[in-house]
Amino acid sequence: MRTNISLEEAQGLVMALGGPVGQDWVTLTEAVGRVLSQDVQAGIDLPPFDKSPLDGYALQAGRTKEASAATPARFEVIEQVRAGGVPTQMVGPGTTIKVMTGVPIPNGADTIIKYEDVRREADTVSIFGPLSPGSNVIRAGEDVVRGETLARRGTLITSSLVGLFAAVGLAGVPVFDKVKVAILSTGDELLAPGEKPQPGKIYNSNLHSLLALCLELGAQPVSLGFVPDERGAIAERIGQGLAAADIVVTTGGVSVGDYDLVPDALGELGATGIFRQIDLKPGSPVLASEIAGKTIIGLSGNPAAAIIGFELIAIPAIRQLMGLEKCLPQKIQAVLLDGFAKASPQRRLLRGELEITGGKSMVKFTGEQSNGVLKSMVSCNVLVDVPAGSGPLKAGQEVSALLVGNLRGFM
Amino acid sequence: MRTNISLEEAQGLVMALGGPVGQDWVTLTEAVGRVLSQDVQAGIDLPPFDKSPLDGYALQAGRTKEASAATPARFEVIEQVRAGGVPTQMVGPGTTIKVMTGVPIPNGADTIIKYEDVRREADTVSIFGPLSPGSNVIRAGEDVVRGETLARRGTLITSSLVGLFAAVGLAGVPVFDKVKVAILSTGDELLAPGEKPQPGKIYNSNLHSLLALCLELGAQPVSLGFVPDERGAIAERIGQGLAAADIVVTTGGVSVGDYDLVPDALGELGATGIFRQIDLKPGSPVLASEIAGKTIIGLSGNPAAAIIGFELIAIPAIRQLMGLEKCLPQKIQAVLLDGFAKASPQRRLLRGELEITGGKSMVKFTGEQSNGVLKSMVSCNVLVDVPAGSGPLKAGQEVSALLVGNLRGFM
Repeated sequence: MRTNISLEEAQGLVMALGGPVGQDWVTLTEAVGRVLSQDVQAGIDLPPFDKSPLDGYALQAGRTKEASAATPARFEVIEQVRAGGVPTQMVGPGTTIKVMTGVPIPNGADTIIKYEDVRREADTVSIFGPLSPGSNVIRAGEDVVRGETLARRGTLITSSLVGLFAAVGLAGVPVFDKVKVAILSTGDELLAPGEKPQPGKIYNSNLHSLLALCLELGAQPVSLGFVPDERGAIAERIGQGLAAADIVVTTGGVSVGDYDLVPDALGELGATGIFRQIDLKPGSPVLASEIAGKTIIGLSGNPAAAIIGFELIAIPAIRQLMGLEKCLPQKIQAVLLDGFAKASPQRRLLRGELEITGGKSMVKFTGEQSNGVLKSMVSCNVLVDVPAGSGPLKAGQEVSALLVGNLRGFM
Repeated sequence: MRTNISLEEAQGLVMALGGPVGQDWVTLTEAVGRVLSQDVQAGIDLPPFDKSPLDGYALQAGRTKEASAATPARFEVIEQVRAGGVPTQMVGPGTTIKVMTGVPIPNGADTIIKYEDVRREADTVSIFGPLSPGSNVIRAGEDVVRGETLARRGTLITSSLVGLFAAVGLAGVPVFDKVKVAILSTGDELLAPGEKPQPGKIYNSNLHSLLALCLELGAQPVSLGFVPDERGAIAERIGQGLAAADIVVTTGGVSVGDYDLVPDALGELGATGIFRQIDLKPGSPVLASEIAGKTIIGLSGNPAAAIIGFELIAIPAIRQLMGLEKCLPQKIQAVLLDGFAKASPQRRLLRGELEITGGKSMVKFTGEQSNGVLKSMVSCNVLVDVPAGSGPLKAGQEVSALLVGNLRGFM
């Protein structure tokens, strides 16, 4: 088992552990937020036929060459086609068909002129200037050509993609199964929110923040609740999690103290250790193990460290199980809007909020950076990546940062 | 009724029409993605007591002033407190209590020293250098002070905020009701996805993309299906939508052709017109009306124009109903990575994708920009805002852009 590795090594190791969990087929109504399990091709051209982009008259532009206000070109209106209809007549040199938006271009016609640009009298329209052939014609296949790949396996299905699938007539699409993520918190000191305060006890926040994070990701959370620091109880719950979910994430019980029992519980279950501890503050106490093809990730019990560890280690593993093509947080460059007074002997991630101002990406720190502090996580959507051995940071300095929180999907 | 107004006027008018729809109380498990209906204060300090951030020994630092490798300071271990426990003894000048991470600082102690930094022999620990008083003590209220406002009315509840609420012991929070958004598509030319293709007909994509968009927003979609271009049928469905939902959005039937019947149907229902048409391409055919306190927004039937109109006009109205503090899309400056060859006599929004490269926000166009083209919506997360009267755009030019799509939440 590797110990004290870099964040990137840890991400690589958990992502190597598992691929997508299974496939399904869902209707378009259920598709948003799911991940395509196969490339999807268009079965038709889009639009399926040459059509009019507006309400107008279909005609042959050739006859308007000499048209002017004094000598308009005149056309006989031989048919009128409303939306959803199909022209039945053929347009000849002196005839025109009135068409609504979206109607197929009549045979023989090469041009559409807007209602507003003609004079209509009885069955005749007059046109007062030359038209270019092909104007106001949307060509079949302008948007999508039959056989074209609309989206690849591993793509997150957004609302616009749902629209595109609908437009080519697909009633549903193949998707990967939703990933079930079991969350367990450990610790003798934990109270459930809503319980009466007790001396020496704190409210368990990790279970709730991580279950909510699973929902934000589009995964299916499975709550394993919280257990005291007892090896047997922890092992039993992890076992339940492995039976009910595709991956298990625990918080607490992974540092070096006497009562850090998650590794012991994993040993009891016969897990294979993948790594323990990463070289990073916060979130250094973290581990990954594997049992029968399922991954267990053990995170720090410190609330901010647990969320950051989940973002950086568990989410890549979960996204891999979801079948997503991109699993790692995007890295950007940004300029600091304020400084950070402490030196960073160890590689450190600082919580910030991204602003795009004047075309530049800027980060302001979201507050107190201790491992346990949750408040500065709330508006955090970038983690400033401070290399080991850095001194204090100054406002105006350029830094690297990872996108998380409400920018998690921007990758 | 106003006609041909600016996008910003239209947004102001629809946002003035309605406020949040009602209030509820939900448990933390249901809270993510909802909007706070009241400010939420902390009922306790966080952490609730001075505590140890690590596994170590609690003592008085004063006695270590002269400590060195040759002359260590020695302390008698009088108690051992595990996580969740409370010290029962008082620390005096020569005594120490062994504490786990998170344990309250024992009375009399002012400092914690790590396990790894002491030598333990039987009931004695030796310390080989001076300690500063107060080191390794997390103070009560360091994260949150009792009575402090954790989040304001109108805040979207994220997973980290759920964690913060849990940490102060809240079992649930007051939220605004989910907003029900009814979607109706109109048009004689429409087929349902999955149906057999027919000449002159196209598959309805708007219903599906907009229902999916509602899910992305955290609203509750209500499908009114699609109806042909018949005033009575349209009026009937809009009526059903008004009964079942908080806001109704239609697509199609709002331009100036013979069969554009949504305004007529709204007239039949006794609606008050708010505005019709905005000065913008795509999406200029758009209207807003009001009946008995509920808003109806009529969008273009062109698939891309419908999605853009929904993003820019319907979403601000829906976010207002959701009770969110921020309802309008964020505007940023960015540099174009490629050009756009056409002049823009009218104000125009061009579909692009944001990249943050080298600390700068850059936009690349996502493809064909016609009103009907859907493919270029799929990866679109910025709409480049091209002022009326602009010429062709060049790569490298600085532009304004609105954040939409997967950057919608970044505001």
